[in-house]
Amino acid sequence: DRPMTIIAGPCQLESADHAQMIGGRMKEICAAHGAQYVFKASYDKANRTSLSGKRGLGIDEGLKVLDGVCSSLDVPVLTDVHTEEQCAVAGAVVDVLQIPAFLCRQTDLLLAAGRTGRAVNVKKGQWLAPWEMGNIVDKIESTGNTSILLTERGTSFGYNNWVVDMRSLPHMAQTGYPVVMDATHAVASPGGKGTSSGGDRAFAPVMARAAAAIGVAAIFMETHEDPDNAPSDGPNMIYLDHMPHLIETLMTLDRIAKADPIRI
Amino acid sequence: DRPMTIIAGPCQLESADHAQMIGGRMKEICAAHGAQYVFKASYDKANRTSLSGKRGLGIDEGLKVLDGVCSSLDVPVLTDVHTEEQCAVAGAVVDVLQIPAFLCRQTDLLLAAGRTGRAVNVKKGQWLAPWEMGNIVDKIESTGNTSILLTERGTSFGYNNWVVDMRSLPHMAQTGYPVVMDATHAVASPGGKGTSSGGDRAFAPVMARAAAAIGVAAIFMETHEDPDNAPSDGPNMIYLDHMPHLIETLMTLDRIAKADPIRI
Amino acid sequence: DRPMTIIAGPCQLESADHAQMIGGRMKEICAAHGAQYVFKASYDKANRTSLSGKRGLGIDEGLKVLDGVCSSLDVPVLTDVHTEEQCAVAGAVVDVLQIPAFLCRQTDLLLAAGRTGRAVNVKKGQWLAPWEMGNIVDKIESTGNTSILLTERGTSFGYNNWVVDMRSLPHMAQTGYPVVMDATHAVASPGGKGTSSGGDRAFAPVMARAAAAIGVAAIFMETHEDPDNAPSDGPNMIYLDHMPHLIETLMTLDRIAKADPIRI
Amino acid sequence: DRPMTIIAGPCQLESADHAQMIGGRMKEICAAHGAQYVFKASYDKANRTSLSGKRGLGIDEGLKVLDGVCSSLDVPVLTDVHTEEQCAVAGAVVDVLQIPAFLCRQTDLLLAAGRTGRAVNVKKGQWLAPWEMGNIVDKIESTGNTSILLTERGTSFGYNNWVVDMRSLPHMAQTGYPVVMDATHAVASPGGKGTSSGGDRAFAPVMARAAAAIGVAAIFMETHEDPDNAPSDGPNMIYLDHMPHLIETLMTLDRIAKADPIRI
Repeated sequence: DRPMTIIAGPCQLESADHAQMIGGRMKEICAAHGAQYVFKASYDKANRTSLSGKRGLGIDEGLKVLDGVCSSLDVPVLTDVHTEEQCAVAGAVVDVLQIPAFLCRQTDLLLAAGRTGRAVNVKKGQWLAPWEMGNIVDKIESTGNTSILLTERGTSFGYNNWVVDMRSLPHMAQTGYPVVMDATHAVASPGGKGTSSGGDRAFAPVMARAAAAIGVAAIFMETHEDPDNAPSDGPNMIYLDHMPHLIETLMTLDRIAKADPIRI
Repeated sequence: DRPMTIIAGPCQLESADHAQMIGGRMKEICAAHGAQYVFKASYDKANRTSLSGKRGLGIDEGLKVLDGVCSSLDVPVLTDVHTEEQCAVAGAVVDVLQIPAFLCRQTDLLLAAGRTGRAVNVKKGQWLAPWEMGNIVDKIESTGNTSILLTERGTSFGYNNWVVDMRSLPHMAQTGYPVVMDATHAVASPGGKGTSSGGDRAFAPVMARAAAAIGVAAIFMETHEDPDNAPSDGPNMIYLDHMPHLIETLMTLDRIAKADPIRI
Repeated sequence: DRPMTIIAGPCQLESADHAQMIGGRMKEICAAHGAQYVFKASYDKANRTSLSGKRGLGIDEGLKVLDGVCSSLDVPVLTDVHTEEQCAVAGAVVDVLQIPAFLCRQTDLLLAAGRTGRAVNVKKGQWLAPWEMGNIVDKIESTGNTSILLTERGTSFGYNNWVVDMRSLPHMAQTGYPVVMDATHAVASPGGKGTSSGGDRAFAPVMARAAAAIGVAAIFMETHEDPDNAPSDGPNMIYLDHMPHLIETLMTLDRIAKADPIRI
Repeated sequence: DRPMTIIAGPCQLESADHAQMIGGRMKEICAAHGAQYVFKASYDKANRTSLSGKRGLGIDEGLKVLDGVCSSLDVPVLTDVHTEEQCAVAGAVVDVLQIPAFLCRQTDLLLAAGRTGRAVNVKKGQWLAPWEMGNIVDKIESTGNTSILLTERGTSFGYNNWVVDMRSLPHMAQTGYPVVMDATHAVASPGGKGTSSGGDRAFAPVMARAAAAIGVAAIFMETHEDPDNAPSDGPNMIYLDHMPHLIETLMTLDRIAKADPIRI
């Protein structure tokens, strides 16, 4: 198995400069530790807890920024899409289209994403059993697209909390597709701050390290130079300054895990 | 408080005749027991477990059938919408636009539904705490629309199962909006049959009776003359023949509940 | 089916006078509304959240008080037991031995309780599926004792919270034994106040009414004249003054439920 | 931090020879990979799913076998206790008394175990939040005993299933006491086979590796040369033959984890 990929970036795009700064720094860190890097950011937060939550740059401006990151840094770029129409538009720019967890069973969205021919990363719905991801894979495969990634981002566990069932990773791997651990959304607390999500970034390395030791294709983490002042997902984003140390440990764990694959 | 409304119909539209048959029968049953009746059916099942699940008549044909039910039976009609574009189209025909649970936090969909001026029934997401529905109400109210209903349809409880937390009903009622109990989807088993939902209709009256005794504005139930051969949600739909007896009991419970409202 | 029984009393015994006061008042209220009444109180709270929680009168003094309630008020008495040794001692005095939920799978305790010949009320463990209660029934029946009651008191739902799955009631009824709804412990919040349980008594009538409308043999509720100053379970106990009104509603719901039994 | 300890053995004692065989083999494997080893086995399975489940050798015969393992193999020995009386008896023989998860809040049992002066390993109840373990620690510390271990073995997640929240490990570590991951009970399926627990041993290494990468004091695993024919917990026990390879990987992960401790 290949070394682990790191999918990382700010939760939402703020500006071209900001995206370049984060992307550039992450590219260096990943290169230093032998990880492939994919830049991630959202142009629109379409399902904020409350109406007052900032939604982002919008698709036109956002895709320009993503295109800039892609060409100037020479890294693949991932973003999430929310409607059929957005798939073709975003798919013309980015390398990976991501299906948000809440939308993971919307058939038309999956088909539209599949038809772009781009890689499609589906986040497992927070209410979905990992073995149900096979049905989702089938929907995308029906378009002839077999560039599929499946992401664990936590499952509903009582109110205002997610839990990550680590068994989910090998379960989803049985589809034959690469499995991604989203280590930062998994430690969010949905609606935990009343009108926005809470969370506890101190636990993101817990999720990332556990997943790396089990063996995953990629780890997804949102990061920011100043998370407490980020426009979304601040409580669970990782400080950019903490990334070099964390990624070094993760890649060491990855080498051990890949040398001794778990078979279920 | 007013007597309980019954929102009922087949899970998906099959034909004009079928819709008229179910709607006509339900109207009679409700009238016999003092319940207001709203016909419910879907023109498109947009998030089937698997690709092979039947999706329905489609929006053009479906809305024609719904319009026919509305005019010939003189009953209000409810259907679910999945995109912003569908809101205006469906809103021109039906009385109540329903936001599916998976989509309950999609801001643009809520706003588009609100802007139609039609009543909007939002199903609480299966991962959402009942007290988070206030944020959803705020999104719709921002359009000036205050015809809002909030529906409990179960919360994620381990894999392939929902649980109904009956505390959710008075919690949601604290928004000041009418609360609906969806008694049939609550007893579905998501992905429980591999490539489709399972469920156990024997428990639907359990949910309906419990909710009626607590006091709700409406009970939502899917029904069919032959559920085992229905194109979707068969395992949890109630036999049409069982409705007269069930609704009689529910309306009796409703009278007791409304005479002694629960205050939290 | 017979009218519903009300099992009620303070969470823990405080004094003979206090027990007689609560028991006497509850007996009157139940008689006024056609309910059979069973007095409940604990002589020892053996599994308090923290060491500083008050444990109660102890078994010797406690059983004297229970005996006094039984003889002076002429009502059956229920108390919980925590060890094999306590079964015979308590069984010499009380009518119903109750197995706490945490202990519901301790084989020796179940057998010792069964051997007393007294009725045994087992609370379903907070981690146990309702269909597993058949195995617990088998353990007690092996002693030749078939006076068994099964109680729902909520199931673990994330952290510091229980949820009541109302499907549990008809599931447990399939054993053929009477089913009890514990409406006050079900709305506790385990460890919710750090060193003691929290809870919200406003929801206890929600649970009681829902269960009554489904049809149960009994409803269990803890009550106190001044819950906020009670030595345990204050947050979820019902004010004694609210009981007449609540029980009147519950018995009305019970009559409707018993006239139309749910069959699963 | 010290290298990880492995607590391992058969679920229940079968005979002196069997215990010596398993213990001897595990001691060799652990020594080869730099792990301290503690032998674990139960003399009584006090809370089997059903009455027909085998209970084991009993306390007298069982403690003789444990004493033999301890003296002939020169390894520490752990066993679980279920009543106050058993604490002193077992405490005279074994090095670590283990409190079963179902009993983790039984105050008298915790105090009796604490008073023996032996190390006390408490398994977190399947319904307990990890931050509630502080109250349990307080109970044991009140006896003057500060040799305490805290074990994660999964939390109730819907019916017939546990989930391990990996955040639990650093949460419990905040007490200052060593944290243990029980990798085999965590993958059991309570009541999953009707009259006995099910489970899937293929996932035990998933739990063990994840915990090792986070950093724990010990990993607890039940093992057997022929799990499918073991008298209890067969579905989730690890083949003894698989242990050398697994422990090698775990100790490698442990070195990485201990070199970069997680701070929360």
